[in-house]
Amino acid sequence: MSTMQAAVFVEPGRIEVQEKPIPEIGPTDALLRVTTTTICGTDVHILKGEYPVEPGRIVGHEPVGVIEKLGEAVTGYEPGQRVIAGAITPCGQCHACQDGVSSQCGGKAMGGWQLGNTIDGCQAEYVRIPNAQANLTPVPDELTDEQVLMCPDIMSTGFGGAENGHIRIGDTVAIFAQGPIGLCATAGAKLMGATRIIVVDGVPERLETARKLGADVGVNFREQDPVEAIMELTGGRGVDVAIEALGLQETFEACLRVLKPGGTLSSLGVYSGKLSMPLDAIAAGLGDHTIVTTLCPGGKERMRRLMEVVAAGRVDLTAMVTHRYTLDQIVEAYDLFSHQRDGVLKVAITP
Amino acid sequence: MSTMQAAVFVEPGRIEVQEKPIPEIGPTDALLRVTTTTICGTDVHILKGEYPVEPGRIVGHEPVGVIEKLGEAVTGYEPGQRVIAGAITPCGQCHACQDGVSSQCGGKAMGGWQLGNTIDGCQAEYVRIPNAQANLTPVPDELTDEQVLMCPDIMSTGFGGAENGHIRIGDTVAIFAQGPIGLCATAGAKLMGATRIIVVDGVPERLETARKLGADVGVNFREQDPVEAIMELTGGRGVDVAIEALGLQETFEACLRVLKPGGTLSSLGVYSGKLSMPLDAIAAGLGDHTIVTTLCPGGKERMRRLMEVVAAGRVDLTAMVTHRYTLDQIVEAYDLFSHQRDGVLKVAITP
Amino acid sequence: MSTMQAAVFVEPGRIEVQEKPIPEIGPTDALLRVTTTTICGTDVHILKGEYPVEPGRIVGHEPVGVIEKLGEAVTGYEPGQRVIAGAITPCGQCHACQDGVSSQCGGKAMGGWQLGNTIDGCQAEYVRIPNAQANLTPVPDELTDEQVLMCPDIMSTGFGGAENGHIRIGDTVAIFAQGPIGLCATAGAKLMGATRIIVVDGVPERLETARKLGADVGVNFREQDPVEAIMELTGGRGVDVAIEALGLQETFEACLRVLKPGGTLSSLGVYSGKLSMPLDAIAAGLGDHTIVTTLCPGGKERMRRLMEVVAAGRVDLTAMVTHRYTLDQIVEAYDLFSHQRDGVLKVAITP
Amino acid sequence: MSTMQAAVFVEPGRIEVQEKPIPEIGPTDALLRVTTTTICGTDVHILKGEYPVEPGRIVGHEPVGVIEKLGEAVTGYEPGQRVIAGAITPCGQCHACQDGVSSQCGGKAMGGWQLGNTIDGCQAEYVRIPNAQANLTPVPDELTDEQVLMCPDIMSTGFGGAENGHIRIGDTVAIFAQGPIGLCATAGAKLMGATRIIVVDGVPERLETARKLGADVGVNFREQDPVEAIMELTGGRGVDVAIEALGLQETFEACLRVLKPGGTLSSLGVYSGKLSMPLDAIAAGLGDHTIVTTLCPGGKERMRRLMEVVAAGRVDLTAMVTHRYTLDQIVEAYDLFSHQRDGVLKVAITP
Repeated sequence: MSTMQAAVFVEPGRIEVQEKPIPEIGPTDALLRVTTTTICGTDVHILKGEYPVEPGRIVGHEPVGVIEKLGEAVTGYEPGQRVIAGAITPCGQCHACQDGVSSQCGGKAMGGWQLGNTIDGCQAEYVRIPNAQANLTPVPDELTDEQVLMCPDIMSTGFGGAENGHIRIGDTVAIFAQGPIGLCATAGAKLMGATRIIVVDGVPERLETARKLGADVGVNFREQDPVEAIMELTGGRGVDVAIEALGLQETFEACLRVLKPGGTLSSLGVYSGKLSMPLDAIAAGLGDHTIVTTLCPGGKERMRRLMEVVAAGRVDLTAMVTHRYTLDQIVEAYDLFSHQRDGVLKVAITP
Repeated sequence: MSTMQAAVFVEPGRIEVQEKPIPEIGPTDALLRVTTTTICGTDVHILKGEYPVEPGRIVGHEPVGVIEKLGEAVTGYEPGQRVIAGAITPCGQCHACQDGVSSQCGGKAMGGWQLGNTIDGCQAEYVRIPNAQANLTPVPDELTDEQVLMCPDIMSTGFGGAENGHIRIGDTVAIFAQGPIGLCATAGAKLMGATRIIVVDGVPERLETARKLGADVGVNFREQDPVEAIMELTGGRGVDVAIEALGLQETFEACLRVLKPGGTLSSLGVYSGKLSMPLDAIAAGLGDHTIVTTLCPGGKERMRRLMEVVAAGRVDLTAMVTHRYTLDQIVEAYDLFSHQRDGVLKVAITP
Repeated sequence: MSTMQAAVFVEPGRIEVQEKPIPEIGPTDALLRVTTTTICGTDVHILKGEYPVEPGRIVGHEPVGVIEKLGEAVTGYEPGQRVIAGAITPCGQCHACQDGVSSQCGGKAMGGWQLGNTIDGCQAEYVRIPNAQANLTPVPDELTDEQVLMCPDIMSTGFGGAENGHIRIGDTVAIFAQGPIGLCATAGAKLMGATRIIVVDGVPERLETARKLGADVGVNFREQDPVEAIMELTGGRGVDVAIEALGLQETFEACLRVLKPGGTLSSLGVYSGKLSMPLDAIAAGLGDHTIVTTLCPGGKERMRRLMEVVAAGRVDLTAMVTHRYTLDQIVEAYDLFSHQRDGVLKVAITP
Repeated sequence: MSTMQAAVFVEPGRIEVQEKPIPEIGPTDALLRVTTTTICGTDVHILKGEYPVEPGRIVGHEPVGVIEKLGEAVTGYEPGQRVIAGAITPCGQCHACQDGVSSQCGGKAMGGWQLGNTIDGCQAEYVRIPNAQANLTPVPDELTDEQVLMCPDIMSTGFGGAENGHIRIGDTVAIFAQGPIGLCATAGAKLMGATRIIVVDGVPERLETARKLGADVGVNFREQDPVEAIMELTGGRGVDVAIEALGLQETFEACLRVLKPGGTLSSLGVYSGKLSMPLDAIAAGLGDHTIVTTLCPGGKERMRRLMEVVAAGRVDLTAMVTHRYTLDQIVEAYDLFSHQRDGVLKVAITP
């Protein structure tokens, strides 16, 4: 049997399940049999044609699976092991990787993001993982697929937002938008010692989930102006770190407006259209502000650390899996997820 | 004798020399007799009414002088000592100072910038230095006033741009604009181990001065497109760190366009009008870029370190003093400096 | 009434309560009426003559109190405010403070530790706080004296050990000794995102308290060899960070033996006698190890942040106050505390 | 022709040139034809039996050569290219490499040091480079073999000592021992902005070479006590960073004695015998000191950066090559080098 089912981008507006050949692997690759995967906001951008991938591309970049086959140069693993790989699969061997920017592998913007982008992805029965030696991490036996399903992308991204914000013990942090990534940023901020975490969203259920993950205060932007609310909550001081987890001019700007002089805006959103800087909010360039953007960190050590967090019970993200589908129902799952119906946060897909 | 000559902001377009009372000092202040000072680009913004200070304010924030009197709580200094103070005079005792953002002293944007802004400045025969204990640094005997005249502001600012860019040994750095601050950023980049320093300006003399301070390549933006030139010089790789030393949309944007994914834009300019982010240049927020802004670091330890650099002969900025005036000629000096006539870089003013 | 009761070091082996003059204050000082204080392990070293202070010195460096009087140069506070000051009272204005090593204020070893060391301390009805502007922090109304009593020293020290170990999300951390400071290091490690915290002590109750504060595994060194136990627990990998919280050759060495190559030993102990490095454990100097020592960070911003941690409910250290005495009973309190009787962790002293 | 000449460790006291098979390569390896190499102090330790390698091992870990053959999984290179590889050849793909400690590749102490240690080295006509993708860097055409010969080890190590000391602009730095590595540390300290570099050695010629590479003051320990001299030179303040480049108790201890409170000891030496800490010099553990050890950083990005330093003319280490031998004369070269005769610093070996 040399074919498999896979979710394929056909054209803007159309992702469908097709019969595709099971991938061949080279000496440094691994072939995974996917056991669980999920749909990301980025996949929705692909579906809508807002982020371009070539027609025929198998989508998906969040794999949990079992090693089916290993390239001859890959050592220390065995077929049958249950593993994950990150959404970003850096090679570990290029100049950029060795220089500490492995998500930009090869020195190209987003170069580390290959799965479901520049090579076939994991919304399929099988997926080829490139540079397997650098990217496969065994899943501890005591953890289920769903417990580690957030590790490859949104947990790594959200935590990355907290980490690149250089949150310190005693920091006050504001996080704009509490979708899956914002929620993970909230959990990450808590885990790093932020003592006052203010989250902003317009959906009461998300604010409620945020509280369970570590938020101290929720601000519903439909009920009050979030900038005013945060400045009042901080006694006019502003926050040490603001995390943008949506990708809009409005939230980016609000982040800068609530930042203390000398504070850091850690940006996770994917922006479109125009993005402008409110000069008054950054003291015309003299406020000692830092703005940092983060693409989901990958690599096997990153995955190991994130699974440690889960295994230690420090963070429980399983409540984020709100819906479950089989791979052949994935078109339906895309429909639900892209329309944010039914309180969906993340869907689990099982081939 | 209780009055002195001082350069006073009267109204937009008018700074003039007036007779003013010699400042009174409180227990934590010092009174300096100014021996040399200079005019900053910011003073020109004040003159033009682009940066608001209250009418009657004595301007100037780059003092070299002799201690005339010390507040009772100030210890370890003596009248008669030759000292400098930074343009920024942090208190060292507030939450912001203790939190590592002393330029934003008091937690207010630019809070550390008092001299010639929120209190009277040093284009005068005498100046009151607040929080003297934290801000006076004796000048080593072997250094002249002019040798340390750049320390209070432009050397501290320019070096700060290099430092906050976290330049490492082997970095390629582009610096946009080679006015006094850009030139100091060039010297700072060299001092931190950048091995390829590409500077951009439109004035050949400035490019030439830049080479003497450490630039490896000069790009005249009147002759070639600097973004294209830099991308070609780096083989398409881009630079590790780009420093903006002007404050324009154009240079800010060019910085982002020449940055490698994962690179840092260190911004020193004071922006006006609109500032927008070219989304393609930052991979829509997924390029792991950092943007950091810097206000001139102050405080006596900073001044000590900068004077060490001068005393050790690591950097010689005396060539930047292109013109000399007495305090009563300062209106003329403003005229020359604000019109950038006669190849002026910095002017020395002696009361 | 110009005298007060105070605990005074008389000679090795003898601290007693004496009548002493209420301190005079200068322009930058504050006078506090002490409401609660405690005894530190260092005070016991003073009592035993192991750490020398001059006879007649009032001991104690952990003050909670009410502002009685303010020096004329101190602004932004009012008599009657309830405040704390850190054990370390940096000036914020010297070269060392501005250079980021404020605990070594003045550039002298331990220069920031003045209270109960080089000037009179706070085991008294009143205490003079030097550089009040840099050191007084109002206590939030909702917190009791006992809730903030650990902030001035052991919480700041223990957290400092975690912070200077640069603990990251997903780190495995071993902490040797779970006395008050080790327990705070455990709480700090948890707060920074360590996911596997292994603590070592010989007292089961302390291991139990450690678990409540965040430890995942307790190793009783009376029952098993801690180095072997930790290497087994980590599958031979070793720990990312080891924290020494006792001050013995044995624990220092054990820290190095459980460290992974490239790991950090964060040392909090006060050592006496000899301290030697096991060369095999550090690969003869080629293991990329870091050893860092920390003296309790002080200053008002530090105190503000620590009280934020308490106020946010992130850490509850009140269970560490196991005994309570009035100031006139302090000799008895020293006796109990120095002999570690009755499960004592910390004693609260109220004048 | 399937054999080659190679310098082989036979037994303690005996390295000899033997006929050995040309190495076979696997899919991720490269075969280099060595054009120039050198002898390291570590090789002398191997020769003397002080550092154990298995009999029959080809020694040497500083290769300059030409690509002869590439494993099938290695891309982006071509046979015939002139390249270097570092002494440390990290895989870039294991947990330790991805966690930022690539010299400890595989999580084993010194795990990244393979060449001439755990696998055959480069004092031979040919050498197999493992993980070639992560370790080969093309040599710019304009640089000779000798110009880049210091990059693989001593330049990387010496610079690493400066980098891990986190030298900042304006720092005062003391460097103990000015052998090849100490000299490179001096050059590195200068390159990072240290403004006062004090070097200690007993050989006047080495102090003289140090001055050419950036030292401001040389202290001959045969003429004056270096600790006293340095404390006097710094006015009792001590140095910000002390670098140990020898591996003796005496120099390690002197480093701590000249360090300011809060300073950093960056250790490069390989220690034998006992190493103990002078407690008075570290304030019994309360001086906020940092001690960091460094193993030569490797990997192709590191090599690229070091060659950039050379190409830019920032540092010229060619004067360090004091003697030249062919491979079949290497026993003679070892004799000269190990006895430090004739002012030898480094020898170039050409197969």
